[in-house]
Amino acid sequence: MNIRANAFDELMAFQRRTEALGQISGRLGWDQETMMPRAAAGQRAEEMAAIEGVLHARRTDARLEAWLAEAEATVVTGDAVGQAQLRHIRRSFTRASKIPARLAEELARVTSSAQGVWAEARASNDVATFLPALREVITLRREEAACLAQGGDLYDALIEDYEPGATAASLGAMFDGMRPRLIELRGAVLEAAYQPEALEGRFGSDGQMKIARELASAFGYDWDRGRLDLAVHPFSSGSGSDARITTRVVENDPFNCWYSTIHEVGHACYELGVDEDYALTPLGQGVSMGVHESQSRIYENQLGRSRAFTGWLLGRMRTQFSDFNARDADAFYATVNRVRAGYIRTEADEVQYNLHVMLRFDLERALISGDLVVDDLEAAWNDRFRADFGFPVDKPSNGVLQDVHWSVGLFGYFPTYSLGNLYAGCLHQALGKAVPDLDGQMAQGDTSAATGWLRENVQRHGGLYTPREVITRACGFEPHEGPLLDYLEEKFRAIYRL
Amino acid sequence: MNIRANAFDELMAFQRRTEALGQISGRLGWDQETMMPRAAAGQRAEEMAAIEGVLHARRTDARLEAWLAEAEATVVTGDAVGQAQLRHIRRSFTRASKIPARLAEELARVTSSAQGVWAEARASNDVATFLPALREVITLRREEAACLAQGGDLYDALIEDYEPGATAASLGAMFDGMRPRLIELRGAVLEAAYQPEALEGRFGSDGQMKIARELASAFGYDWDRGRLDLAVHPFSSGSGSDARITTRVVENDPFNCWYSTIHEVGHACYELGVDEDYALTPLGQGVSMGVHESQSRIYENQLGRSRAFTGWLLGRMRTQFSDFNARDADAFYATVNRVRAGYIRTEADEVQYNLHVMLRFDLERALISGDLVVDDLEAAWNDRFRADFGFPVDKPSNGVLQDVHWSVGLFGYFPTYSLGNLYAGCLHQALGKAVPDLDGQMAQGDTSAATGWLRENVQRHGGLYTPREVITRACGFEPHEGPLLDYLEEKFRAIYRL
Repeated sequence: MNIRANAFDELMAFQRRTEALGQISGRLGWDQETMMPRAAAGQRAEEMAAIEGVLHARRTDARLEAWLAEAEATVVTGDAVGQAQLRHIRRSFTRASKIPARLAEELARVTSSAQGVWAEARASNDVATFLPALREVITLRREEAACLAQGGDLYDALIEDYEPGATAASLGAMFDGMRPRLIELRGAVLEAAYQPEALEGRFGSDGQMKIARELASAFGYDWDRGRLDLAVHPFSSGSGSDARITTRVVENDPFNCWYSTIHEVGHACYELGVDEDYALTPLGQGVSMGVHESQSRIYENQLGRSRAFTGWLLGRMRTQFSDFNARDADAFYATVNRVRAGYIRTEADEVQYNLHVMLRFDLERALISGDLVVDDLEAAWNDRFRADFGFPVDKPSNGVLQDVHWSVGLFGYFPTYSLGNLYAGCLHQALGKAVPDLDGQMAQGDTSAATGWLRENVQRHGGLYTPREVITRACGFEPHEGPLLDYLEEKFRAIYRL
Repeated sequence: MNIRANAFDELMAFQRRTEALGQISGRLGWDQETMMPRAAAGQRAEEMAAIEGVLHARRTDARLEAWLAEAEATVVTGDAVGQAQLRHIRRSFTRASKIPARLAEELARVTSSAQGVWAEARASNDVATFLPALREVITLRREEAACLAQGGDLYDALIEDYEPGATAASLGAMFDGMRPRLIELRGAVLEAAYQPEALEGRFGSDGQMKIARELASAFGYDWDRGRLDLAVHPFSSGSGSDARITTRVVENDPFNCWYSTIHEVGHACYELGVDEDYALTPLGQGVSMGVHESQSRIYENQLGRSRAFTGWLLGRMRTQFSDFNARDADAFYATVNRVRAGYIRTEADEVQYNLHVMLRFDLERALISGDLVVDDLEAAWNDRFRADFGFPVDKPSNGVLQDVHWSVGLFGYFPTYSLGNLYAGCLHQALGKAVPDLDGQMAQGDTSAATGWLRENVQRHGGLYTPREVITRACGFEPHEGPLLDYLEEKFRAIYRL
């Protein structure tokens, strides 16, 4: 028996258990947002701290250093999979080792608890009750960032958790590249003579959910390895053979339910599409939040809001609902893609979506740097919103309380949404060349060629490549914002007859 | 600072984390039987093995010995709570230390997986597909029992997990004391001239679940700390501030749904009724399966199937259903308590229930001793069933595949059901003296005096006393089978007009 081979095998066996425990932690998070009884929040926070303590101890286990050193020294040059596994484990070990166990557990406890505080504050539109919890979360995340950054930029250190290789500077440059063309396009569209009708009608929740399930099936969601539930804030959760999704039902606003569903199906299909040989290894999950969002957004937008697919959706709607205002498929397509004033990021049209993200990006950088204090956050949000969108926030649930992210400590996460849009634009361009009959198939509700191409070129690789590598390999070019902006201008100028 | 006080505090802080991780393991079990997608079973088995590995490592942690020794040496004589905590932790440490980590994890993996195999075998009435999984479970449980028994009786060692202090001999004596009077009572009842009508009518699932929720509320179930879902095999799960229940809906057999619900509410109320100071400590749960079953059975039977309460239930039924055959409250009471031929333990009437348990008790003792091999199990079950009940098993889902227990390794668990009935009989006698107007209150659907007495005298103590102690203290006498048998004879002779 080769002792050196053993170091790698022992390392991977150990890591497999860690990955399984990580899945458990994720499952508890899912439970907390879908199933958990109201008064169990305190106990759940202790449970989350306990499992995080276990995970942190494993991620910093002293044996890892010896296993890693030996395995890295002996991994075969051509063994791309083995090298990628070691790269991920080394990265996790290095990062986790910088964070004290006490801090890791405290973060798990505080964010689990703050999430419930946020949900109640949002429901009652009471910012003040959320601020103490948010202050605690930010204090701990800043402390964590200081451990990780070791003198470098705090916010960059946090981004690294979600998008390895990205920095505030690179993301800021991306936003700078997007902003002028998006603002110009928004201006043109909002001032256009032709304005699509808003959807009007009666859409009961049973019918909404029935179509949500049809949409998930149409996009290839594997019901044997997932399920669909309701949550305040739609999300997907889990990897391997258990990737669940959630959506929400807003009375008479079925697009909210349906496009949230397609979006989360994109996330879940990424997880479920990873090569099953990678299950319960560091390669067995989506490689970054940006690449994740590229899948959810291309499912939702470039595919789900296309003229071809909305035509099919209209037919499905007519099986459930009779009382709504779609004259024909072209008018319905315009209605689906209507650009309008709105407060909510997750409900924003494709033109304005990234403007919502930019607002959060700038505010959260200021929160982490210390330039903005929690007490001033609501005013800063409201000022910035009015400046960027031209009208005032009417209530906190439409403003600073709308997103769950900050309550659970996700600072550095928002910009990956825009990066995902950028990637989705690139992938869509490449997909169009690879599948010339894309629109013909989508018009029949047949997404198999499109989702198959994404699975083959992006999803199955899991963590094998770096985020930029996997997009570059799939597209055949380095990702940049051009394809997204070209696509948006072409699509919306056509819809608005400009 | 007192170093000796520190040993106790450190021990309890460590134990608190272990208890939180134990709650997580239980939550995964709940998820597996209620929410988990079908194809996730393999991954879940690995997750269960991983968390079990963590729990086993903590339960055998080398620091426990030093903490325990020091805390035991210094705990104050009058500190009953501290002494009980140490007793539980010592017992857990001693038992866990006898079991190799590999075996503990293997048991978690195999039982998680076998549960799914059982569910599919039961659904398709295919015993053969279940036997290899069952053989593996029994092999591992026998191996575990050998580690625990250290030369003693294997089955006794397993019982100790569920009912500390009980043995096969003591439980066998209990069954010997019950069996003749139960068989005589059954004979008299089945041959009686008067026979209650079976329930007939149409009972839709929505109406069944609506009344199930009303029943749970009537018995004081705290919805803020629990929830009700559907499962193949009704169960309750969780402690502290999160104790969930499940039931099932059988078309046109609403008693199955409703009395399963009341039964599981009894279990959950025990967990939720424990003194909250004991949360996430070894005292923070029901003390044994027998005492647990005493609560579920007294809720279900002595209270829920009483003449007084069934009168109230009939009124509730009439709000949901119009098409059924209850002439009046007396006839309905007889229908609820109708003694009839039946295959299924969980649906058995009070007269025959313990006869079902005796069958399992004898068969599982033989499986664990090695006198019965898995290949002969179905035949042994069918022979014994015909001998005890007078008619043949028609299909495996009505026979050897009906219960989940063996698939998840619960050998030694079944007899605690009968012990729970025995305890319930004793508690009911004492309750009747403590609450003279019990029937008057139950007739109004008001269970608060009854459930309050049980919470005060049994539930709140959690693990403070031994199982026999807590029953003895509540009743004022040592538990024995007399009160249960007296109650059954009086109740059923009256119903059957003997």
